[in-house]
Amino acid sequence: MHDTFQPVELAKSYLLLNHGPVVLVSSAFHGRRNVMAASWVMPLDFDPPKVAAVIDSRSYTRELVEASGEFALNLPCRRIADKVLAAGSISGREGDKFAHTGLAAFPAGQLGAPLVRDCVAWLECKVIAEKHNQQRYDLFIAEVVAAWADPAVFSEGRWHFPESARRTIHYQAGGSFFETGRAFDCSGE
Amino acid sequence: MHDTFQPVELAKSYLLLNHGPVVLVSSAFHGRRNVMAASWVMPLDFDPPKVAAVIDSRSYTRELVEASGEFALNLPCRRIADKVLAAGSISGREGDKFAHTGLAAFPAGQLGAPLVRDCVAWLECKVIAEKHNQQRYDLFIAEVVAAWADPAVFSEGRWHFPESARRTIHYQAGGSFFETGRAFDCSGE
Repeated sequence: MHDTFQPVELAKSYLLLNHGPVVLVSSAFHGRRNVMAASWVMPLDFDPPKVAAVIDSRSYTRELVEASGEFALNLPCRRIADKVLAAGSISGREGDKFAHTGLAAFPAGQLGAPLVRDCVAWLECKVIAEKHNQQRYDLFIAEVVAAWADPAVFSEGRWHFPESARRTIHYQAGGSFFETGRAFDCSGE
Repeated sequence: MHDTFQPVELAKSYLLLNHGPVVLVSSAFHGRRNVMAASWVMPLDFDPPKVAAVIDSRSYTRELVEASGEFALNLPCRRIADKVLAAGSISGREGDKFAHTGLAAFPAGQLGAPLVRDCVAWLECKVIAEKHNQQRYDLFIAEVVAAWADPAVFSEGRWHFPESARRTIHYQAGGSFFETGRAFDCSGE
């Protein structure tokens, strides 16, 4: 693993997705691999942690995820937003999308799917087979089996973005993103 | 409806949730009503638009949603973040949560569930019964039957936040939120 990675406690891994960032979904099967951008991803449970993700039936990622039963969620930051947009704009069937977008892969801890370099956090996920959801809604449910974060950006269960370039991002539409913005605290009542 | 509301075209209503903001889930059944905060909500389809939302089995909202078959997603802004936190911290079984939090309700267009005033966008949703998902994962799938936004904040399919107070917000944990941050455009490759 890259030397700035730290494991994230599984029961706290939902905190990586709680604020709704865009992710890169990486997948692999029998020497083929792919990466796609996705906004329709959310935590589904705390412990054991689960996620829900929409993976279009026509996508190459779908083919690899169904064949392998796994995928990784990689949280990109503003620095690589142009590559995220490129990963969301073409199909992996047209050629290796890592090569095409300039995104670099490295091995996961527990999956055959690669992780994406220059991201700030990673969740390794194993699909819980739910055929009805997959076929009817393109909806995948998966258990998070490992999680990692750049400790300069996420540690002790909190994000603390050191600079704009390493902020997580949220997709709007038409090539337009938002940075994750200013943090603020409320006391409730 | 409040005079600063405008309808949002249903096929574009996913854009209200695409960037992953926290929402208030409002519900009602036979004169009882409730509102709770939720981060685990995402778009599920474009047209007809659908959403997926996690609604804990122990919550009062769950009881009202299962009884009525509907809920509304209200997008709060920074100005009412303290009330969002309060709505996420107590149960509606302890008393009317609108009264307790100071959140104000007004009638929806197509639902019996109320909408929440001082939010910036609203999605009215009818549950698509999926008992297995509800029972096993606390996961609700619903069709969006009406959507609204404050045109000063969202119009023509884009967010354009005029001020910090009206930015949508994203929940981290422990009373800490993020504002939706700066918008930026990418050209792809």
